[in-house]
Amino acid sequence: MNILFVGDIVGRAGRRAVRFFLEKLKKEHKLDFIIANGENSAGGFGMTKKVAEELYGYGIDFFTMGNHTWDNRDIFKFIDQDPNLIRPLNFPDNNPGRGWQTVEINNKKITVVNLIGQVYMGNNDSPYHKFIELYPKIKDSDIILVDFHAEATGEKMAFARAVDGMASAVIGTHTHVQTNDAQIFPEGTAYITDAGLTGAVDSILGMKPDKMVEKMKTSLPVSYEVGKGKVKIEAVLLKIDDQNNQMKQIMEIKKNNL
Amino acid sequence: MNILFVGDIVGRAGRRAVRFFLEKLKKEHKLDFIIANGENSAGGFGMTKKVAEELYGYGIDFFTMGNHTWDNRDIFKFIDQDPNLIRPLNFPDNNPGRGWQTVEINNKKITVVNLIGQVYMGNNDSPYHKFIELYPKIKDSDIILVDFHAEATGEKMAFARAVDGMASAVIGTHTHVQTNDAQIFPEGTAYITDAGLTGAVDSILGMKPDKMVEKMKTSLPVSYEVGKGKVKIEAVLLKIDDQNNQMKQIMEIKKNNL
Amino acid sequence: MNILFVGDIVGRAGRRAVRFFLEKLKKEHKLDFIIANGENSAGGFGMTKKVAEELYGYGIDFFTMGNHTWDNRDIFKFIDQDPNLIRPLNFPDNNPGRGWQTVEINNKKITVVNLIGQVYMGNNDSPYHKFIELYPKIKDSDIILVDFHAEATGEKMAFARAVDGMASAVIGTHTHVQTNDAQIFPEGTAYITDAGLTGAVDSILGMKPDKMVEKMKTSLPVSYEVGKGKVKIEAVLLKIDDQNNQMKQIMEIKKNNL
Amino acid sequence: MNILFVGDIVGRAGRRAVRFFLEKLKKEHKLDFIIANGENSAGGFGMTKKVAEELYGYGIDFFTMGNHTWDNRDIFKFIDQDPNLIRPLNFPDNNPGRGWQTVEINNKKITVVNLIGQVYMGNNDSPYHKFIELYPKIKDSDIILVDFHAEATGEKMAFARAVDGMASAVIGTHTHVQTNDAQIFPEGTAYITDAGLTGAVDSILGMKPDKMVEKMKTSLPVSYEVGKGKVKIEAVLLKIDDQNNQMKQIMEIKKNNL
Ligand SMILES: [Fe+2]
Ligand SMILES: [Fe+2]
Ligand SMILES: [Fe+2]
Ligand SMILES: [Fe+2]
Ligand SMILES: [Fe+2]
Ligand SMILES: [Fe+2]
Ligand SMILES: [Fe+2]
Ligand SMILES: [Fe+2]
Repeated sequence: MNILFVGDIVGRAGRRAVRFFLEKLKKEHKLDFIIANGENSAGGFGMTKKVAEELYGYGIDFFTMGNHTWDNRDIFKFIDQDPNLIRPLNFPDNNPGRGWQTVEINNKKITVVNLIGQVYMGNNDSPYHKFIELYPKIKDSDIILVDFHAEATGEKMAFARAVDGMASAVIGTHTHVQTNDAQIFPEGTAYITDAGLTGAVDSILGMKPDKMVEKMKTSLPVSYEVGKGKVKIEAVLLKIDDQNNQMKQIMEIKKNNL
Repeated sequence: MNILFVGDIVGRAGRRAVRFFLEKLKKEHKLDFIIANGENSAGGFGMTKKVAEELYGYGIDFFTMGNHTWDNRDIFKFIDQDPNLIRPLNFPDNNPGRGWQTVEINNKKITVVNLIGQVYMGNNDSPYHKFIELYPKIKDSDIILVDFHAEATGEKMAFARAVDGMASAVIGTHTHVQTNDAQIFPEGTAYITDAGLTGAVDSILGMKPDKMVEKMKTSLPVSYEVGKGKVKIEAVLLKIDDQNNQMKQIMEIKKNNL
Repeated sequence: MNILFVGDIVGRAGRRAVRFFLEKLKKEHKLDFIIANGENSAGGFGMTKKVAEELYGYGIDFFTMGNHTWDNRDIFKFIDQDPNLIRPLNFPDNNPGRGWQTVEINNKKITVVNLIGQVYMGNNDSPYHKFIELYPKIKDSDIILVDFHAEATGEKMAFARAVDGMASAVIGTHTHVQTNDAQIFPEGTAYITDAGLTGAVDSILGMKPDKMVEKMKTSLPVSYEVGKGKVKIEAVLLKIDDQNNQMKQIMEIKKNNL
Repeated sequence: MNILFVGDIVGRAGRRAVRFFLEKLKKEHKLDFIIANGENSAGGFGMTKKVAEELYGYGIDFFTMGNHTWDNRDIFKFIDQDPNLIRPLNFPDNNPGRGWQTVEINNKKITVVNLIGQVYMGNNDSPYHKFIELYPKIKDSDIILVDFHAEATGEKMAFARAVDGMASAVIGTHTHVQTNDAQIFPEGTAYITDAGLTGAVDSILGMKPDKMVEKMKTSLPVSYEVGKGKVKIEAVLLKIDDQNNQMKQIMEIKKNNL
């Protein structure tokens, strides 16, 4: 089983990157299941039904979200109907949507869990305790994948070590910069601190550099715009043994059309 | 001119990594100048004279610091005498030490500047405005290297784009996780979001995983300890053209003794 | 029923204030029950068994805590035995101690709940959802008192309005500055944003001004010391109707020995 | 010389409070000069020319601002022309507007300085060092008034103690809750942690309670609306000796039309 986890897709440029690269990656790596963090897919802020459908059309199978989940109000219209899009589990229980989902791929039960950090990330319940509370319900899954959407490297790694052996993989998202630390922990959980950015190459976190630079220089409010031009996809490839569902390999993927 | 910038050295394990790898790296890459972030060199927290001398002995030429600058009070005794150790320039002017230093290597004037971020990093003055204020004094240097010690990827990249063409390189530090985004910006400034960690392989940010995991599970106070066992060095190699002082290449370096 | 809620007691000066003023206040206002926030009672940081006993001796009946709960490790030895000291309910469930307690005073069942905020207060679970989860177990109490230990005025007030009619009173603590907004909300819950400081008059939040000022001027690490000299007690008086357990009055109390 | 400092005016309800109470207060206390924090005057977010003119019409002489300075883009059109409205001095120097202003009232030179905190307040330069840098230019003023717009009580008080004897008064703003600690420090500087709120009585920080409560319950995005109904004015009265310009008294003012 080969699974691709695609880093935060930012706006039109990010969707263009998915269209441009995903089909080739799918063949090259014989991908069985493709997850993406979709929190910035619609204009850099949130997700719409139209954008989700566009991306499903390009081959994305499943979406996780993050701190930008509710930025575009369109999501309230379809999150409870869409079986393949989840939001952080440690948002309040009374929020729309769900924080985890089990899907069946090639006769394997794959559970995807979305969590959000607490450090520099707004006021969320403990991701660790929410995961531990959930675990008995999902532990008979063949594969458990966690998108841990967080800022602080220490929180991401400490969570992953805390659930080492419980989750098949903990994939960090949110910083929009791919890290160089993909590894498999002692008890078998694959990990990377951040999957990276899918969007404009000439950008800061997917957004036009000039606006971000102006903000740095003046601290005045600016309207961020999605970057343009050449695009890239950053992702993580997970290779899982079909016999025992153990993680065989985790590998950074990074392609651009420069 | 080949310059190596070594990511945050954490405790005894980090010093062991420097001892183990630096000599070989120096030969392999014909290094002319070696800078390291030293804020965690002494037991994970701060720097002492003894530790600085040990590391100079292994071949480190110059130290930058960060938010942990004052963690070990020994630094107050020697920071004003040590010509090769600087602390963030955008700390208050009345603090001991200096925020930049010019050294001469192979007849080249190299200015090293240390800055610290504002986002999730305590209360510091604007690194951008402090750099712009300093720039007229250092602009005739052949090479200007900035250690930008910060948490948020967006702040790091926005700063680097804002000084693109002014600094020869902006090297991010602090997150203890090497990023996969070394690049040269349009106006010639080399950049990486984070140089990474020099310390224990089996660790969270250089510290023992069990303590960090316990913290994740209970939120109770724990005494962090420096990690043990196998070690790694993470660094960035900068290749600079001796004719025109332009950056030719920036490259991630990552070695471990597994 | 007259209840006094005493604002954060800071160190020896704070304990001296309790000794000096509490007996007189008890007589003057015919106090039936006296609660205090004790998180800074021992040297400004945390609580010890000895300090708790000293303060029980001066007439404090019950302690709540806050972000400084675990600052002094002595608390781990006695928190599970002391029936009259609670820590924030929205700390992880696996922490020592309890987050609420019912006591019987004058044939009334009084439940005290301790909560901590999320805004600028470290990573805690939602105080609102934790309270709502608890409420069915305590709703038959005659009186429900909440110490809401938090930084942001908006979070304190929003919580109190959210539980208006469920809690008898929501008393804010943590800022060490008494606010001028004691009031009873439309559904009957008494509220104040902060009960204030019990400690040295010539101080910043109970600590010596010179150290705090030095910190402001240099940002260098300082050792905070508890303030000395004249002392004050700041507290909130709650008058409750014995017939129907309705809040009749909430009033700021503020005494100093200047 | 009697000066009134009016706490953050929030929206239409706040302006109604000024219209309703200010004339009477002016007569009752023989006010010579009236300053108000205006950062929330226009719909709760920022300031417009029209709103400033309305409030000047009611008797406000001078405005300070805070973290909401740029919320309404109308301010960019008039801030450089309006002689009686300042924004925080420790915003970047390249921002529109000024951070201090000297006005002449009854043959006295009064300098008003606006500063913003660093703790939990976004990324601002050090208010202390900016004030110290400014001080030589303003020290021959008869009266120096500082609006210190900040969240943390400790930062407010530490700043005020650090400039005790330099400023005539340091008035805290931003929390929208009046504190009960007006006092004159040993070297003569009058101080209060927060002047309070001028706006709707039935509100949370001036905004409708239901929206703030909904946010507390769900963490979902809400559109805040300015509160309605009965209004209040919260302010601080400063009485200054005309002979020696020394502060004689600082007193909380609080009126509502319930
Ligand atoms: Fe994102
Ligand atoms: Fe995010
Ligand atoms: Fe570090
Ligand atoms: Fe650091
Ligand atoms: Fe406290
Ligand atoms: Fe506290
Ligand atoms: Fe305000
Ligand atoms: Fe404000």
